[in-house]
Amino acid sequence: MNGPKGGNRSGGRGGRKGGGGGRSGGGGPRLRVLPLGGLGEIGKNLTVVEYDGRIVVVDVGLRFPTPDQLGIDLVLPDFTYLRERAEDIEAIVLTHGHEDHVGALPFVLRELDGNPPPIYGGPLTVAMVRSKLDEHRLKNVPLDELAAGNDIQAGPFNVEMIKMAHSIPDAHAVALTCDLGTTLITGDYKFDQTPVDGIPADVSRLAELGREGLLLLCGDSTNADRPGVSLSESKVGPHLEEVFGRCDGRIVVTSFASNIHRVQQVVDAATALGRKVALVGRSMRKNVNIGRQLGHIDIPEGMLVGVKEIQDFPDEKLVVISTGSQGEPLSALRRMAHGDHPNVKLHDGDSVVFSATPIPGNERAVNETIDRIYHLGADVITTADAPIHASGHGYQEELKLMLNLTKPRYVMPMHGDHKRLRLHGRLAEDVGIESDNIFRGENGLPLELTKKGASFGKREQAGMVFVDGVDVGDIEDVALRDRRMLSADGIFIVVATVSEQDGRSVADPEIIFRGVPFLDDVEGLVDEIRDAVDDSLAHSADENISEISLLQDHLHDDIAEFVYKKLKRRPMVLPVVVEV
Amino acid sequence: MNGPKGGNRSGGRGGRKGGGGGRSGGGGPRLRVLPLGGLGEIGKNLTVVEYDGRIVVVDVGLRFPTPDQLGIDLVLPDFTYLRERAEDIEAIVLTHGHEDHVGALPFVLRELDGNPPPIYGGPLTVAMVRSKLDEHRLKNVPLDELAAGNDIQAGPFNVEMIKMAHSIPDAHAVALTCDLGTTLITGDYKFDQTPVDGIPADVSRLAELGREGLLLLCGDSTNADRPGVSLSESKVGPHLEEVFGRCDGRIVVTSFASNIHRVQQVVDAATALGRKVALVGRSMRKNVNIGRQLGHIDIPEGMLVGVKEIQDFPDEKLVVISTGSQGEPLSALRRMAHGDHPNVKLHDGDSVVFSATPIPGNERAVNETIDRIYHLGADVITTADAPIHASGHGYQEELKLMLNLTKPRYVMPMHGDHKRLRLHGRLAEDVGIESDNIFRGENGLPLELTKKGASFGKREQAGMVFVDGVDVGDIEDVALRDRRMLSADGIFIVVATVSEQDGRSVADPEIIFRGVPFLDDVEGLVDEIRDAVDDSLAHSADENISEISLLQDHLHDDIAEFVYKKLKRRPMVLPVVVEV
Repeated sequence: MNGPKGGNRSGGRGGRKGGGGGRSGGGGPRLRVLPLGGLGEIGKNLTVVEYDGRIVVVDVGLRFPTPDQLGIDLVLPDFTYLRERAEDIEAIVLTHGHEDHVGALPFVLRELDGNPPPIYGGPLTVAMVRSKLDEHRLKNVPLDELAAGNDIQAGPFNVEMIKMAHSIPDAHAVALTCDLGTTLITGDYKFDQTPVDGIPADVSRLAELGREGLLLLCGDSTNADRPGVSLSESKVGPHLEEVFGRCDGRIVVTSFASNIHRVQQVVDAATALGRKVALVGRSMRKNVNIGRQLGHIDIPEGMLVGVKEIQDFPDEKLVVISTGSQGEPLSALRRMAHGDHPNVKLHDGDSVVFSATPIPGNERAVNETIDRIYHLGADVITTADAPIHASGHGYQEELKLMLNLTKPRYVMPMHGDHKRLRLHGRLAEDVGIESDNIFRGENGLPLELTKKGASFGKREQAGMVFVDGVDVGDIEDVALRDRRMLSADGIFIVVATVSEQDGRSVADPEIIFRGVPFLDDVEGLVDEIRDAVDDSLAHSADENISEISLLQDHLHDDIAEFVYKKLKRRPMVLPVVVEV
Repeated sequence: MNGPKGGNRSGGRGGRKGGGGGRSGGGGPRLRVLPLGGLGEIGKNLTVVEYDGRIVVVDVGLRFPTPDQLGIDLVLPDFTYLRERAEDIEAIVLTHGHEDHVGALPFVLRELDGNPPPIYGGPLTVAMVRSKLDEHRLKNVPLDELAAGNDIQAGPFNVEMIKMAHSIPDAHAVALTCDLGTTLITGDYKFDQTPVDGIPADVSRLAELGREGLLLLCGDSTNADRPGVSLSESKVGPHLEEVFGRCDGRIVVTSFASNIHRVQQVVDAATALGRKVALVGRSMRKNVNIGRQLGHIDIPEGMLVGVKEIQDFPDEKLVVISTGSQGEPLSALRRMAHGDHPNVKLHDGDSVVFSATPIPGNERAVNETIDRIYHLGADVITTADAPIHASGHGYQEELKLMLNLTKPRYVMPMHGDHKRLRLHGRLAEDVGIESDNIFRGENGLPLELTKKGASFGKREQAGMVFVDGVDVGDIEDVALRDRRMLSADGIFIVVATVSEQDGRSVADPEIIFRGVPFLDDVEGLVDEIRDAVDDSLAHSADENISEISLLQDHLHDDIAEFVYKKLKRRPMVLPVVVEV
């Protein structure tokens, strides 16, 4: 298997800068496949495919921060390369509507300001992205539906969408064909033989690509460590119904809001047991609305109970479907677990059903949430108790099936940490692909292909950009922070000392700022911020919020808003709460 | 099942303060079982057993901090109750030598200064604790061996040690018998029918306690969520040998240093395959030494390779046994994964074998460590690949066996978060114990038993105490921080801004302090600390340390040391590193 070092040793042919539009070297025009995210990590998928100097971008995803990235709300790919090559971008193609594939689009559009390229995706993807762009108040973006089986021409590329199965409807692989051959970027996929919508992945077209001779396969590695075959999504429904049938009181189900087929199966199970359904959490209501409009989900008339009716509705007649399956700090379920949700107070007799598993890294947040739910007296049912979740990513046998269907000359595994990329590479070896033709890439490292062969080229700029402050309603002024350019608006660090007993401030908050421009009355501002910190803490205390991470979240939002009002700028706000 | 609220509603008979030595109420002398740690959490186990005003303490454990407890090294139980009742403590009994059962002993001894009660434990436990007390320079502590099957009298209690199986040799349940009956505190246990040392748990004595009529069972709940029976420790060895046999290059095995039987099995597997063994990590070498002296582990002459010989030893002839199975920040394996270990440089062909699973909460650290190892080119083998780890805690069928053997009148599950306490309570119901006789306790909530019955009493003070700074060699001056009394030495918050490229300081560090007494030349000190921060970062940069958590660790240690030199005090040091 070719690692990044091997590629460098073999002497890259020179990147864009030395290559003059990709025509250098002895093998004629060059195809470059440059991942700017999603390799060596889970999330922020973004791949640049380039031929003869013209570019198609596949997916523009984001990542959620790790716990040690204090004060950060989102993590984006570094867009430097896209900014510098903005005029060469023929199209952006979106495989499906998950945040790790489309979430950074509003931010990249701002970087390419004035002249966005056409953006393509399936109908549901387009609807979800349009809603997101509206929130960001981005108008007149050329967003077009490109359904499975259809294709368009984008510069030197024919771009074709191929139907795949995943944990969101309307997921596609993208085949990009240029003179040199076809590159297949699978997006996230599984081979679900019995999907909820009845339309399995287009294995026939994949096989055809294989017969025609696929040049390069860039495949999803998320489950490269799991042997066998993933559970079919449609097998989850009967198990949910069985689990619900054993519950006497109220049922709260949590799952990913975008898994519209899962929501459908929850609704079906509730219907079968004579229960009604309430949707809790903003993204849950939004996605179900979009899904209903596009016919992906069918909720019978009179089935839905309003959020404000939940408290008065008979427990044994209700299923609440909630966001928060990953223990996210401000999610509906986390707030329920902390006794902090206005409409759902968990109690003895309630059953909380996790129709999801923790994404790696979220285990602690999920376990804490579960333990708090137990502490409130409710019961918790997880995938350890019944098969009530199916992964959206194919397991090892499915990845091998993909390799055998498409018979690629070259393979570059994508969407995975270093471990999964390596294991995916081994699966390719297992099905007989030559080790020299398997490339273990890194973000920023372009794979360059000519008629003569393939090797890694010169490293391009890649990395992380942080986003601070994404409150809805305030999104136009969201701060985009490239940490290498932090100087723009600077940073405020707010250190609050609170009482363990009642969460109130017990010492003057410390305010540190750095690189914040246009400060006139510094002392006055610091005093005002101190007051704002005390107010924020008092407000949290009034609402019985005692969890440090929640306090920090609230503090961050309150201070960021306050500073913005005062300065009309958005420095990064880093909250540190010390409990005494 | 009796929850804490139920107990309070039924009107506790009044705690110690109202009870005048435990003789109040209508039922004669009262037995109180007061957990000060280990309930609603995993770790810092400490139980106070009290009859007729006299106390035996079972276990004095600690916990490791969660990632959001910045600047904290250890978490201890709140000792207020023990301090106030110091004169009534007849004995401290230690079930086994794990940190979550004995780790807080040096700290509690300092609280009971001058007059420590006698301390009892098995021979290995005593040897390990003695080594720990030596490090803390605690002399003349009355530490006595009490082997399995033996008993002593401690005030009104007969205290008997009963042999159990666990992931450390020399683990015991403790039976405390007073006039009112017998309380059994199981400690951590499993029923291993084929333990490595050939001596299974003393089921015969447990059954005898049951026939005599056990009053109260306080049992380990750690695996109350796992159905079936735990794997026998002796089944791990053959799988390790099989896994080693498939490795061509160097093998690095990581496991808990105290699991001496596991180390024995690694040594046996290495011997069988003609490999030698090197021990890496301070606690690994220490525990193996103690284990050898007491005959728990047998390492043939000439089998050990010194740490400094590792680099020059043939890879295919070596097994390195290392600490760091939990991805601990400064552990040997974590340093290897970051290319930062002086003697072991991981590379292609190496195999790292995790003979351990992540303790809940450590998943992210372990997964990060694994991914970095893959990135260095080495291979990783975990329990997902082969059964190379056995839990030290019994599964559901074993907990039920314990309940059926001992036939307790009352049950109070221990050692578990809220979820596991509840599930353990359900297992007790499953074997026919009346729901009213099962008590779901909390730290600080005493269960009070008289001839007439059992109920929760008035809440006592319980909580967390934080320890900051436990570097070896410096341990006498370790700072013990009760966050409710932070005022003693105060707190320094150090905010450093470093370059993402090279980890060097790129802006003046910010120093915040609060409640630090005896500050004369404040500005001079702050300047000096700033310099010390820059030095620390430059030093880390020279060693190519770029991981934020490691930078913070080093920064913490360097600044804590510097501040101590200057002030002869140990304020808490909270490092915040911002990468730009």
